[in-house]
Amino acid sequence: MSQKPVCVKDFEEHARRVLPKSVYDYYRSGADDQITLADNQAAFSRWRLYPRVLREVSHVDISTTVLGQKVSMPVCVAATAMQRMAHPDGEIATVKACQSAGIGMMLSSWATTSIDEVAKAAPEAVRWLQLYIYKDRELTKSLVLKAEREGYKGIFITVDTPYLGKRRNDIRNRFKLPSHLRMANFEMPDLAFSSKESYGEDSGLAVYVAKLIDPSLRWEDIAWVKSLTRLPVVVKGILRADDAIEAVTYGVDGILVSNHGARQLDCVSSTIDVLPEIVEAVGGRVEVYLDGGVRKGTDILKALALGAKAVFLGRPILWGLAYEGEQGVSEVLELLREEFTLAMALCGCRSVNEIDKSIVRKSASSASRI
Amino acid sequence: MSQKPVCVKDFEEHARRVLPKSVYDYYRSGADDQITLADNQAAFSRWRLYPRVLREVSHVDISTTVLGQKVSMPVCVAATAMQRMAHPDGEIATVKACQSAGIGMMLSSWATTSIDEVAKAAPEAVRWLQLYIYKDRELTKSLVLKAEREGYKGIFITVDTPYLGKRRNDIRNRFKLPSHLRMANFEMPDLAFSSKESYGEDSGLAVYVAKLIDPSLRWEDIAWVKSLTRLPVVVKGILRADDAIEAVTYGVDGILVSNHGARQLDCVSSTIDVLPEIVEAVGGRVEVYLDGGVRKGTDILKALALGAKAVFLGRPILWGLAYEGEQGVSEVLELLREEFTLAMALCGCRSVNEIDKSIVRKSASSASRI
Amino acid sequence: MSQKPVCVKDFEEHARRVLPKSVYDYYRSGADDQITLADNQAAFSRWRLYPRVLREVSHVDISTTVLGQKVSMPVCVAATAMQRMAHPDGEIATVKACQSAGIGMMLSSWATTSIDEVAKAAPEAVRWLQLYIYKDRELTKSLVLKAEREGYKGIFITVDTPYLGKRRNDIRNRFKLPSHLRMANFEMPDLAFSSKESYGEDSGLAVYVAKLIDPSLRWEDIAWVKSLTRLPVVVKGILRADDAIEAVTYGVDGILVSNHGARQLDCVSSTIDVLPEIVEAVGGRVEVYLDGGVRKGTDILKALALGAKAVFLGRPILWGLAYEGEQGVSEVLELLREEFTLAMALCGCRSVNEIDKSIVRKSASSASRI
Amino acid sequence: MSQKPVCVKDFEEHARRVLPKSVYDYYRSGADDQITLADNQAAFSRWRLYPRVLREVSHVDISTTVLGQKVSMPVCVAATAMQRMAHPDGEIATVKACQSAGIGMMLSSWATTSIDEVAKAAPEAVRWLQLYIYKDRELTKSLVLKAEREGYKGIFITVDTPYLGKRRNDIRNRFKLPSHLRMANFEMPDLAFSSKESYGEDSGLAVYVAKLIDPSLRWEDIAWVKSLTRLPVVVKGILRADDAIEAVTYGVDGILVSNHGARQLDCVSSTIDVLPEIVEAVGGRVEVYLDGGVRKGTDILKALALGAKAVFLGRPILWGLAYEGEQGVSEVLELLREEFTLAMALCGCRSVNEIDKSIVRKSASSASRI
Repeated sequence: MSQKPVCVKDFEEHARRVLPKSVYDYYRSGADDQITLADNQAAFSRWRLYPRVLREVSHVDISTTVLGQKVSMPVCVAATAMQRMAHPDGEIATVKACQSAGIGMMLSSWATTSIDEVAKAAPEAVRWLQLYIYKDRELTKSLVLKAEREGYKGIFITVDTPYLGKRRNDIRNRFKLPSHLRMANFEMPDLAFSSKESYGEDSGLAVYVAKLIDPSLRWEDIAWVKSLTRLPVVVKGILRADDAIEAVTYGVDGILVSNHGARQLDCVSSTIDVLPEIVEAVGGRVEVYLDGGVRKGTDILKALALGAKAVFLGRPILWGLAYEGEQGVSEVLELLREEFTLAMALCGCRSVNEIDKSIVRKSASSASRI
Repeated sequence: MSQKPVCVKDFEEHARRVLPKSVYDYYRSGADDQITLADNQAAFSRWRLYPRVLREVSHVDISTTVLGQKVSMPVCVAATAMQRMAHPDGEIATVKACQSAGIGMMLSSWATTSIDEVAKAAPEAVRWLQLYIYKDRELTKSLVLKAEREGYKGIFITVDTPYLGKRRNDIRNRFKLPSHLRMANFEMPDLAFSSKESYGEDSGLAVYVAKLIDPSLRWEDIAWVKSLTRLPVVVKGILRADDAIEAVTYGVDGILVSNHGARQLDCVSSTIDVLPEIVEAVGGRVEVYLDGGVRKGTDILKALALGAKAVFLGRPILWGLAYEGEQGVSEVLELLREEFTLAMALCGCRSVNEIDKSIVRKSASSASRI
Repeated sequence: MSQKPVCVKDFEEHARRVLPKSVYDYYRSGADDQITLADNQAAFSRWRLYPRVLREVSHVDISTTVLGQKVSMPVCVAATAMQRMAHPDGEIATVKACQSAGIGMMLSSWATTSIDEVAKAAPEAVRWLQLYIYKDRELTKSLVLKAEREGYKGIFITVDTPYLGKRRNDIRNRFKLPSHLRMANFEMPDLAFSSKESYGEDSGLAVYVAKLIDPSLRWEDIAWVKSLTRLPVVVKGILRADDAIEAVTYGVDGILVSNHGARQLDCVSSTIDVLPEIVEAVGGRVEVYLDGGVRKGTDILKALALGAKAVFLGRPILWGLAYEGEQGVSEVLELLREEFTLAMALCGCRSVNEIDKSIVRKSASSASRI
Repeated sequence: MSQKPVCVKDFEEHARRVLPKSVYDYYRSGADDQITLADNQAAFSRWRLYPRVLREVSHVDISTTVLGQKVSMPVCVAATAMQRMAHPDGEIATVKACQSAGIGMMLSSWATTSIDEVAKAAPEAVRWLQLYIYKDRELTKSLVLKAEREGYKGIFITVDTPYLGKRRNDIRNRFKLPSHLRMANFEMPDLAFSSKESYGEDSGLAVYVAKLIDPSLRWEDIAWVKSLTRLPVVVKGILRADDAIEAVTYGVDGILVSNHGARQLDCVSSTIDVLPEIVEAVGGRVEVYLDGGVRKGTDILKALALGAKAVFLGRPILWGLAYEGEQGVSEVLELLREEFTLAMALCGCRSVNEIDKSIVRKSASSASRI
């Protein structure tokens, strides 16, 4: 590296240069025309900050809790699939960095490292399992039970993926896993997304989902997962207030406002723009989180001001992995910790409880460019 | 082709490379400064989606009816003129692709294949005739009667073209038909837009319209067409709620919200933006359709959410023809069918009846670019 | 010319290529950062059209009257200074083209052809005098009296130029008249803006204005001009409803909503955006006109729909002059006549009286680019 | 210089070419993604002007007072740090130019020329001290007392910098003072920001602030500063109405609406957009000023129309220094004086008292580009 990265964009730029094109494309791309992909970040820019001054900010406490677990900051790691494509250490590197940072990691069902290996690598880390519900419900159940057994602290059920979104680059690249990798939570080659399977001229992952993931999911299935485990259950992929209320009715323990990194359906709302109405509908009955477009300390601050309990980071973690494995992830987390702490201090907030709605307002005008 | 197209834009890009400039320009251009041409698509991007989750979308039924005819999806082919410029098979290729796809085709009065030839090529296809009302009313009547005789299922009267819009490229190119082609529904060279006729330094088609098409059209002429036939009659080119109400009063069977592909008068509203007020004014008394700017599955979904019964595709079909004739049109239709089905599933809609207004909202901010 | 121009932009592009840089810059530039210069045109694009159909538009009458004079269309020529810089025939070419076209010409006080020469060249043309009020009131009076004597039909008093706006290019170019030209209404070299006078390192014209034009103008001066002549008097340069009401109180016969082609003060409102409130304030007591940004037939239609009695063309006339003198101006006028007639027809308006507010609405979104 | 600058942008462009990169970057940069940096200027463009005409503007009086001191125009010099980086004469050049221009200068605590040297260089100039409150309160007190002793007329306390904002370029450049310069108000090398101190891989100034400036500031500290001196005290860095009211409660004599040149926290509101609500909240009890984005005469006019008593110039002064020291600053001030006078005249304002709210309105649309 010619120069130390000073912002998340620098990490991404480095990843763009060093990763194989099909891997970078897979991580970076959004669905269709990628309008929502751009909007996830642009929408943050439309929310402007109104800082308070003279608030004695010599000590700023950014710690909080997520699902009852203490975390050192309201920033955790979102599930992103197949992290060994980004760095040989993959999910091991990520979970160790999370453990060191004192934050939580959501492990993807589609990890290239298994639930138990990740647990072993970082026994003290707060870990959650992101769950895809497979047509094979026994298999699905086994993932949940394994997570509980291995000390994971919650289940985040993905509810926005009855089918995989159309990511044009993945079709063009006929994306599949490199031959030396597999989804480590599964034995059978087809379940493990083995590159030896046949995926035609499509995105291999889209074929995988169409074959194996259950598109018939209903609210009752959330209840079914809850019946399998004593772990808290979060629904991941909510974008409407009425669905949020439904989730509360079905007894979820948290709601993750997410558009799946803009990778499922293009033109859906950015997550930050839809957050306020969901927070209002939920009315504090369960925790609400957000992912999508978080790249800077001010993004985190805005999400919390609009009612999120914490935010989750997807792509920035992958860029950190590509930069230097565990060390790279740690640097990304440290960068955001510093930026968020600074943003809080400069807005006059000494603890996350002091962050309130009055510090953000939506602007009619887009961000200008220098 | 180096690479299989994965979106409609890819088809257009291919067409741009392979078609003669004057043909590509004719198909692509809008009127004047082409502000509305851009806005037809941009306006779709300003409407954001708010998907429902966990709706058991293992089966998604996208079929519907148009003017009482069953179609496999709410996407039909709009009239575009002189399709043999795009591919030697022209309208024959298009209608066969429609027949295979189980959707309807609106044949242009200005087709390079005649009403009966098209009927013969695809007897099972749902076919409608797009009608220009000529100064010569007997000629006009003969078109209507021929369509009825040949099993066409309706007449779409173009009401926005008393004169042809000013398309600058067509003037610069002095656009006329290639010498081996003619408008096949007419015998006389002047009516058939023969390249041997003289059109001065203008767009040949503008001269053609000024000479032959009736600019004195009134609502009574709609009644006249209705008196000629038992076929349902649709007015094509409505952009105002009051005109829509007038159309209902005059007994039309459907309204096609259209700005003629932004080819008539620049600066008119995009069609998707004006759709809601027209749907509200019509109040379900007749079917309302839309064309203009539809390029993606989410566009179709938005139009239906805002009250359209179906959408019509213009230029994408031409790009399909240029790509590979009937096969190319089939691929475009298949692409949109997949995209639309996926969009429905990811918004939690199992049938077109479940698509409602709550899934779309207009955003103040434009789409950002990556 | 490689190609016949098909829109006003084509004429401008030609002028950019053939005119000396300092002349083109003088004509084209706006004040300061040229934000209003861009906005004068961009604002027109934000107003969208909502055409009526089936209105029997075989005959479209675009004639109207301005200050009681019959004109063939609601488009007249605004005063632009020193037209012989654009073409050797200058104002003579312009007035002859106006006479042929049956429209009115407003002659600049700063013309390079005198009031009487212009009158002689086109005795049948509707002519008005644009008046700068000089510190030397006798001189000013003589201009008014001469105009009346020579059959001019009205006086347009410029009220927005107590000092000349800051046009950066004119300062950089140290703009002055070419040595063979002079302002033809004045004898003395300093009044005639002779290139032999000294203008320092500034725009020569800014120095000229500071020295000679009266910055102390008040409403009473309008009354004074009215007292000199029986000709109707129009104030040119109104941008506020309260000023428009004041003008009516002082007995003016017309109001020209103008920001001086965005050449006086940058960041002032575009003219089309401020027109509706001025029309409403005036309430039909006097005629209201508009200049600024009119480049297309739809611009004219929008201005009339928002209440203007007529629009005035500035720069497009200069581009016509640069293209081919009288013939060039005639071509520009003919182009706009055709575009405006077509726009009326396509909006269902058979005469200017049928143009109403319902055909335009302001859009929140800017025009997109292709 | 090939050409005399005609606007502030020309001065900046010159500075960009002649200054060392790390110095230019330090002066120019904003925090993080620099969204607010762009918005400070863009926001001015969104406010449009509505000029009055015929107001007898032969004499325009732009003089006013700031904190009771007469100034020749409502434009003063904001504190910018370490001006000798821009020109060897640094703050001496600036204060002499201010004295000549009859305006006020706010001297930075971090000046490369000391409080007394600046006083000596321009005894007649209206001078104020910008105050950072150091952890070392005795040191801080000594700065205040020295300023009072040396005839400064007020203290502007920076309240938005408990920590230094993250300016990416300064980190990349590892910004520190050139070795021949020091902050002249301090003896000790660490306090004087000596380049011999160690600042690691960070922006040297960020390290300096973290070590020395007091992040625990509270409103009571404002009262403490007031208790030290009879000079008027202004809080610099207010962006909220409630903080403005708090400031009034604590007895300040003025409020400077500022986002620190967009250098502290990105995404905060532009200053001009937040000015009206602060002016309204303050209700005339103390003077309100603004800095941030002022580059043109119309910017000054808009700020005054929205209630500012005066505006402060930061970067434009640095570009003037880089251009030609005292002479360069004088030219920048003269340029803005001319532009502001012209803007007042063209809006019909004969004195600053005649500037009212009716001449500005916020536009929904951004400025377009030519």
